[in-house]
Amino acid sequence: MASQINPPRGMRDFLPADKARRERALAVIKGVYARHGFDEIETPVVEDFDRLHSGLGGDNEKLSFSILKRGIDRDDLAAATDAEDPLLLADLGLRYDLTVPLARFYASHRAELPTVFRALQTGSVWRAERPQKGRYRQFVQCDIDIIGDATALAEVELITATTAALDALGLEGASVRVNDRRILAGLLASWGIPQHLGERALITIDKLDKVGVDGVVAELGGFGIDTDGIADSLNSIVSAGWHLLDGVAPPPAWLDREAYTHLLALRDAVPSAEVVFDPTLVRGMGYYTGTIFEIAHPGSGSSVAGGGRYDGMIGRFLGTDVPAVGFSIGFERILELLPADALAGHGGLVLVYDPDTDPALLVATKTRLAAEHDRVRLERRPRNLKPLLETAAASGWTHFATVAADGSVGDIRTLG
Amino acid sequence: MASQINPPRGMRDFLPADKARRERALAVIKGVYARHGFDEIETPVVEDFDRLHSGLGGDNEKLSFSILKRGIDRDDLAAATDAEDPLLLADLGLRYDLTVPLARFYASHRAELPTVFRALQTGSVWRAERPQKGRYRQFVQCDIDIIGDATALAEVELITATTAALDALGLEGASVRVNDRRILAGLLASWGIPQHLGERALITIDKLDKVGVDGVVAELGGFGIDTDGIADSLNSIVSAGWHLLDGVAPPPAWLDREAYTHLLALRDAVPSAEVVFDPTLVRGMGYYTGTIFEIAHPGSGSSVAGGGRYDGMIGRFLGTDVPAVGFSIGFERILELLPADALAGHGGLVLVYDPDTDPALLVATKTRLAAEHDRVRLERRPRNLKPLLETAAASGWTHFATVAADGSVGDIRTLG
Repeated sequence: MASQINPPRGMRDFLPADKARRERALAVIKGVYARHGFDEIETPVVEDFDRLHSGLGGDNEKLSFSILKRGIDRDDLAAATDAEDPLLLADLGLRYDLTVPLARFYASHRAELPTVFRALQTGSVWRAERPQKGRYRQFVQCDIDIIGDATALAEVELITATTAALDALGLEGASVRVNDRRILAGLLASWGIPQHLGERALITIDKLDKVGVDGVVAELGGFGIDTDGIADSLNSIVSAGWHLLDGVAPPPAWLDREAYTHLLALRDAVPSAEVVFDPTLVRGMGYYTGTIFEIAHPGSGSSVAGGGRYDGMIGRFLGTDVPAVGFSIGFERILELLPADALAGHGGLVLVYDPDTDPALLVATKTRLAAEHDRVRLERRPRNLKPLLETAAASGWTHFATVAADGSVGDIRTLG
Repeated sequence: MASQINPPRGMRDFLPADKARRERALAVIKGVYARHGFDEIETPVVEDFDRLHSGLGGDNEKLSFSILKRGIDRDDLAAATDAEDPLLLADLGLRYDLTVPLARFYASHRAELPTVFRALQTGSVWRAERPQKGRYRQFVQCDIDIIGDATALAEVELITATTAALDALGLEGASVRVNDRRILAGLLASWGIPQHLGERALITIDKLDKVGVDGVVAELGGFGIDTDGIADSLNSIVSAGWHLLDGVAPPPAWLDREAYTHLLALRDAVPSAEVVFDPTLVRGMGYYTGTIFEIAHPGSGSSVAGGGRYDGMIGRFLGTDVPAVGFSIGFERILELLPADALAGHGGLVLVYDPDTDPALLVATKTRLAAEHDRVRLERRPRNLKPLLETAAASGWTHFATVAADGSVGDIRTLG
C-alpha cells in the first residue's frame, strides 16, 4: 500500500544539486568564520522545555515544537486535562534559534572556554510558521557570537567577519545598519512615551520602512500617546544618520552617552563595509540590551543578516552577567540571492557499462579512475543513453566514457 | 536566577576541539563517498508520525520521540484520555534512522533521480535509549544506499566505498562479514523451526558470539523447538565459511540458490577487503530481504558498520517494489576508535594586544594576517599570559605574536 510521501508541511527535501549548493555555501561561510578566529561548537537540536519557554525566545517561543514526554500515562493525561494545559505533556522541544542554546552551553562549559569566546554555530532551527514562500518550518542559521568582550571590538569583529563571508560568496555591496537599544529607549522617553507602551511603540517604529513617518505617528496616536512633535523629531532623525552623533551641533540630550561612544568607535574601526547609523532600527528580539545591527543587500527586500548585544541573557543561566553579542546570517535568504550558476560543483566521470560485464572488472576500473577524477560513477547502459547523460550533466557531472566487456575504457568525452 | 544548564539527558554538547574532530572525520567519509559516485541528499529531521510507526522501523519505533500536535485543545486531550493513547496527541516525530526517510524521499522524487540512485546521507537520529556509555539519544549516522540495482554490483560498490572510507580515516584492518536473509530462512526450515518462531529464533542465533552453540541450542529448546541435530548443524556451518558455498561437496539443499549465486559474485568482485561468509550473521532490522553485512574492526568489540538489502521497503511508499541496499557507518563508534592524535587540526595565530590599542588598527592587522595564516584570533592581554596560551594550544592553535599599541606585530612564535 502506497502511503503519503511528502515531507512534513513547511519542511523540505534537498535533492543532490540543491544539497551540493547548500553544502558549498556553508563551507564558504564556515571557512571565513574559522579564519577570523571563531570556534565551531554544536549543541543538541533538542533542549529542555522549560529552557525554551523562559521568556528569552520572544515570539519564537510560541512557534516552538514540543516533544511528548516518554512513557506518559493516563494520570499525566488526566492532569493535563484538568489544568487545560497540554504542555504539561511535553518535557523537551526543538530549538527555535541558536542563541538560547549557546547561552545555555556557555553557562555549562565556561571553565573550559577562553575568556573571550568566539563561537561559530550552523544548524537547523524549527518554527511552526504559517508555510508561505520563503518561510520554512525547518531552516538553517549561521551564527557567530562573541562572549566576554564588552568593547566595540566585538561588534567590529562580527561585522568584519560577516561582510567577509558575504563577499566570499560573491554577494558584494551589502550595507550594514547599526543602532543601539539604549538610543531607542532615550528616543521614546524624549517623546514622552510611557514605559508600559515601550515594546508596542518599538514594534510600530519597526514598520517605518513600510508605513512611513505619518503611518508610525498615526499608530502611536492610536495607543493614546500624545504625538505632538513626534513627526518632526522622527523626520530630523531619519535624515541625520551619523551627523546625529558627530554633527557640528552637540548631540541631542536624549542620546545615551555610552551608546554614542560605542557606536562611534564601531564606525571608525570597521575597515571597509558601508556602515549606516539608523536610530530607528529596532530588531525584533526583546533580549537585546545594546548595539543592534542588520545587513541589507541590494538583491533582497529584507535583511540578510542581523544581530545585536544581549548582555543579560547568559546571566539567566549562569547567575552572573557576561557581555555577549552575536550576528546571524539568514542562510535560506542568502541562497535565494546567489545566482543559479554560483558555487558550481566539481566535475565527475560517468562510466557506462554493459550488463554482462564482470563486476570485479568494473569495480577495479572505477577504483583506478577515482584516483584521477573528482568522482566516478558506474551506470549500466540503458536502451537510450541520452536521458542518462542529461541527468548526469544537470547534477554537475562533466565527463563520460564507456567500459567494454573486457574492462577496457574508451575515450573520455565531455558531457553536455 | 541561574537555571538548569546541562544538555537534555543522553544528549551532548561538542566543544571546539571535539567538534573540529567530528567535522574532519565527517569530511573524510563524505569525500570518499562522493568520489565513489554517491550523491548527498537531505531530508527533514522530522517525519510524519504515521510514517515513523508503519512497522518499518522495527524496535526503533518504540524508541521514537514524538512531537506534540500544534494547537492542541481540551477536546483532543479528552479524546486521548478516553482512548488511553497519548500518541493521539502527536502528529510528527524525530527520525530514528536515515533509511525510512530515504525510502519516503525516493518515492517522492523518483522521477527526478537517476535510474540507479546512489544516495549519501549523514545526519543525526534520535532514540530514547537508556543512557549508558557509548549510547546516546542523539547520534550521527553516515549512510550510503543504492536504489534500483538488483545485482551484486550494488553490494560490491557499497562494501568498496565503506572500506575505502575506513581506510582513509586510518582504520585499516577492518573485516567484512556477509550473509543473506534467505540463507537464514533456509537454515531455520532445515531445522524444522516453524514460521511463527522464526523471528525469535533469529534473535537467539544473533547471540551466538556471546552464548556459543550450546547456549543457542538451549534457548531454542526453551521455545519448545525439537533441537535434535541443531548443534551439529550449527557447528559444521560455523567452521565452513565460504567452503559451504564453493567446497568440493555440493552445497547443502537448504541453501537458497539465488543467495548463493549473489554471494559468490560479491566475494569475487570485492577487490581487496577481507570478506568472510558467516551463515549465522543476523542483523537486527526486520526489513532486510537479502544480503546482510557488517564490518568489524580489531579495535572494537561490536560492529562499526552494517547494512543489507531491503527490496520491499520502497514499495510500501511507492506501491511498486524497487531493489535497494544500504550500508551505515556508526559514526560515534568510529570516533571512539580513532587515536586521540588522529585528524589533527589546522594551525592558527593568536594575536595578543593591549586593552588601549585602537580597535581599527587591531582589525586591520588581523585582516592582513588572516590572508597568510589558517586562522587568526585577537586576545586582549590578561594579567597572566600563560593560561591563555595553554588553552589556545590545547585547541590546536600553533602560533602567537603580540601587537603593540601602534599596531606593529612582534615576532611570530610557536605555541606549546
